[in-house]
Amino acid sequence: MDIKQYINELGQKAYDASRIMAAASTQKKNDALNAIADEVVKNKKDLIETNAKDLEKAKESGLESALLDRLELTASRVDAMADGLKQVADLEDLIGKTTDYVQQDSGIKVGRMRVPLGVIGIIYESRPNVTADAAGLCLKSGNATILRGGSEAIFSNQAIEECIRRGLKSAKLPEDAIQLIETTERAAVGELLRMSDYVDVIVPRGGKGLIERVSAEAKMPVIKHLDGICHVYIDDDADMEKAINIAYNAKTQRYGTCNTMECLLVAKSLAKTVLEKLEPMYRKENVEIRGCKASKEILADINIATDEDYATEYLAPILSLKIVSNIDEAMSHIDKFGSKHTDTIVTENQSKADRFLREVDSSSVMHNASTRFADGYEYGLGAEIGISTDKFHARGPVGLEGLTSQKYVVLGDGNIRT
Amino acid sequence: MDIKQYINELGQKAYDASRIMAAASTQKKNDALNAIADEVVKNKKDLIETNAKDLEKAKESGLESALLDRLELTASRVDAMADGLKQVADLEDLIGKTTDYVQQDSGIKVGRMRVPLGVIGIIYESRPNVTADAAGLCLKSGNATILRGGSEAIFSNQAIEECIRRGLKSAKLPEDAIQLIETTERAAVGELLRMSDYVDVIVPRGGKGLIERVSAEAKMPVIKHLDGICHVYIDDDADMEKAINIAYNAKTQRYGTCNTMECLLVAKSLAKTVLEKLEPMYRKENVEIRGCKASKEILADINIATDEDYATEYLAPILSLKIVSNIDEAMSHIDKFGSKHTDTIVTENQSKADRFLREVDSSSVMHNASTRFADGYEYGLGAEIGISTDKFHARGPVGLEGLTSQKYVVLGDGNIRT
Repeated sequence: MDIKQYINELGQKAYDASRIMAAASTQKKNDALNAIADEVVKNKKDLIETNAKDLEKAKESGLESALLDRLELTASRVDAMADGLKQVADLEDLIGKTTDYVQQDSGIKVGRMRVPLGVIGIIYESRPNVTADAAGLCLKSGNATILRGGSEAIFSNQAIEECIRRGLKSAKLPEDAIQLIETTERAAVGELLRMSDYVDVIVPRGGKGLIERVSAEAKMPVIKHLDGICHVYIDDDADMEKAINIAYNAKTQRYGTCNTMECLLVAKSLAKTVLEKLEPMYRKENVEIRGCKASKEILADINIATDEDYATEYLAPILSLKIVSNIDEAMSHIDKFGSKHTDTIVTENQSKADRFLREVDSSSVMHNASTRFADGYEYGLGAEIGISTDKFHARGPVGLEGLTSQKYVVLGDGNIRT
Repeated sequence: MDIKQYINELGQKAYDASRIMAAASTQKKNDALNAIADEVVKNKKDLIETNAKDLEKAKESGLESALLDRLELTASRVDAMADGLKQVADLEDLIGKTTDYVQQDSGIKVGRMRVPLGVIGIIYESRPNVTADAAGLCLKSGNATILRGGSEAIFSNQAIEECIRRGLKSAKLPEDAIQLIETTERAAVGELLRMSDYVDVIVPRGGKGLIERVSAEAKMPVIKHLDGICHVYIDDDADMEKAINIAYNAKTQRYGTCNTMECLLVAKSLAKTVLEKLEPMYRKENVEIRGCKASKEILADINIATDEDYATEYLAPILSLKIVSNIDEAMSHIDKFGSKHTDTIVTENQSKADRFLREVDSSSVMHNASTRFADGYEYGLGAEIGISTDKFHARGPVGLEGLTSQKYVVLGDGNIRT
């Protein structure tokens, strides 16, 4: 197979389909989403059997158990996929919406219309449900999609793609609006990332290695976050109960997620009280604490944190800790070591909260809330295609709106420029 | 001079300044803009004398007269620079504005806050007034700026930068918020384009060569348009007077601008009437017409257009012309040959207008108005840093809003995720 030619053909077909998708009615798009959901449920048995082939191959090749778990399609996971598609059908269609038109001195009326980006490339690993989830969001936002799943999930992804094609067809939308790259050759990814003539944006979903490769190679914009080094800052004026609850929840509710707190900053004046309450709670959960020298004077048993610790996304029951003099030192630390993902201040002092919210340069900034809330569903977006820590285009959880853009619309009555 | 080290130091200083600018009050930013304007006026004589040195050098090196004209600072051009800065001071400050907060089921309130992008790099040619214009917009939007002007304008740009520094200082804002690259070595541009750690976006302003180089080399997002191949489509249901006025204005009002019509598409049913009226008008202005075969049957004296003509931005008194069967053929032509800049339909048929506005994938789409309106001032943005034909982030004329982003703000009262 000529990989370059194959990917280019996919690109051309996706571009052609994107022009039709951009003009498709809400009704047709929703019909397709519901039809795909029905196909997925109708073929549940088939999907699970096909998935078993991927699982078997993966076991033979020694895939570790966490990845095997991600790869597995169970009956409830298939149902969840279908439910997700139906939920996306229920979301408001933004495409074609215009802002208010403003009449200019020349007489023209100027407004903006929400339009799709065009063709979206999704590169993901292991979890076959991403095939349906990502396709659903791109479809609803009027985009065409090229999907590149992990090679270990190829049979499952192909089976899901079949359901998608049938659903698109039954809604009289182009089947090529959502295409799966059918080869598992790595070179296909490189070709996709170079195809900026046809692909408007790439969304990598997976581990840091994948995201780094995509960022380095892509010739088109990328929606991504590389690290989630999230902070909670407990200010002098914090309410003690809120502080303890948030610091505990942000670390221990889940360890492997990007919005988990990795570093706790505590104002000096409260440090002793806060840390003596929190330390036994963390210990009970087997969370290892790595703190600054000042914190070790309070908690004798902890390890000392290095600069590398402060710059690390553990994704594990490990917490770095620093005692700071005030909000300025806290914000400097976040600026230096953070990843512009999500940071929280716990304080009852409104003016300090306002400063933190305005000055901390992260995609989500929070006041008296757990970092774990940084999520498309929790923000009311309905679903998310990913989280962006870049500043261009979309920041934070990216839902339907992040897969669209706005063009200018000018209405005249024969107006000419003088 | 170690170029890499020099550019890196500029970058570090710009980054540090950007954190202060992001938090600066509207009052301070406006004070700085007005102070810079005052400095420019106060130093008018100096600026013109310094500019004379650039002009002399440029004449010696044989710069062509159109470029010499762009390079020249006259008293009225200096005044226009100052007026521009004062106008930017009068624009609404978007920074810190939040959308309505929406309470979610969990109890958190979620909104978005308008924030600067951070550090903006501007690479431009010849015209020294860009130094003040671009700096003003970046300053008002709370960004730090690194300016790289053309080597032929280095003395003028340095003199303007001095005014900017004094203005920033008098408003107690960091002088490094706006820095000019003081070396004319070309390698400096390469270093700037690689410095994605410090520079959030690059705006190239100049000829196609510059924009192509910047797009190819930049490791950060670029706000740009490469071509302005703008179309006017005169539909079967066009009002004849509007059609003639718009087609004449869009081509002849100015030839060298990106929003000038380069290709006229006329519905077959009207072609004879329209072309027989337009041809003598264009001839009077010495506009050369290059048309399809069908159009040559009506206008015997014209040249035949090739596919290359249809794909060319003439920036000159040349017009390509095609007779099309209907709106579908017009939109296909625009899709194939256009540059996603600005396209207009002239019609009295609302449903065809609606289709054109929705389906044509350009940064500005117009109904019964001249393409020449595609401009930040005409759109009420107050000023523009450039025009974007990309779909990511900003499309069309880019004003203050395009130099900003939105971050999520979450307000809680001790909320944790369960």
